[in-house]
Amino acid sequence: MIDETVKTLAQGKNFAALTTLFVDGRPQTQMMWVDADDEFVLINTEVHRAKYKNTVHDPRVTVTIVDATNPYHYAEVRGRVVGEERGASSLAHIHALSHKYNGTDYGQPIQSERVILKIKADEVHVQ
Amino acid sequence: MIDETVKTLAQGKNFAALTTLFVDGRPQTQMMWVDADDEFVLINTEVHRAKYKNTVHDPRVTVTIVDATNPYHYAEVRGRVVGEERGASSLAHIHALSHKYNGTDYGQPIQSERVILKIKADEVHVQ
Repeated sequence: MIDETVKTLAQGKNFAALTTLFVDGRPQTQMMWVDADDEFVLINTEVHRAKYKNTVHDPRVTVTIVDATNPYHYAEVRGRVVGEERGASSLAHIHALSHKYNGTDYGQPIQSERVILKIKADEVHVQ
Repeated sequence: MIDETVKTLAQGKNFAALTTLFVDGRPQTQMMWVDADDEFVLINTEVHRAKYKNTVHDPRVTVTIVDATNPYHYAEVRGRVVGEERGASSLAHIHALSHKYNGTDYGQPIQSERVILKIKADEVHVQ
């Protein structure tokens, strides 16, 4: 089961710094929409993105979810991408995320294919 | 010379996600105060922290500085720690940072020794 603080922060209207690792081991870190279910932290991206390709090569990631009302309150999830979903469910999910953050359907073009990354926490550090 | 957007974001009252790499290559990502001079992104930490020890082992880091007024506007700096400062200048710097963020001298106990990490950008990605 997911940590309750992680779940609350990820389901709230908060942004997360997602870090993935390039093939040479260098990190990349971008601010992302985030979500969670009862087991996993969920990130929705597209399959042509470096961040997605990075996770296929090395599933180790961090997701640092920051309380939008207090930058000193955040949860750092150190974990691994253990599953993914494409197709209709990943499209429905990006629309649901867009409703959470913007109140509307997702309006950007889909450049390749949406994918939900399912991230299992190995460690959680809450500040 | 440092990128102007990076400098403006780092000198403003904004927070940064700092990612360092453990010895086994796993990332860690924490929200930090941040600063910049004309050459480097500057992070002030303490020498007993895992993040500092990580940079001694592997200087590759990311610093993703998020506009506090707009989470969709941020600069991701992919770079390396190329220098450090300890002693009086690192203490003066943590007080200056505290004044920027809180308007007062730094009030937390110094647990080991403050150190300024000087980070040189290899790549900058602005959103």
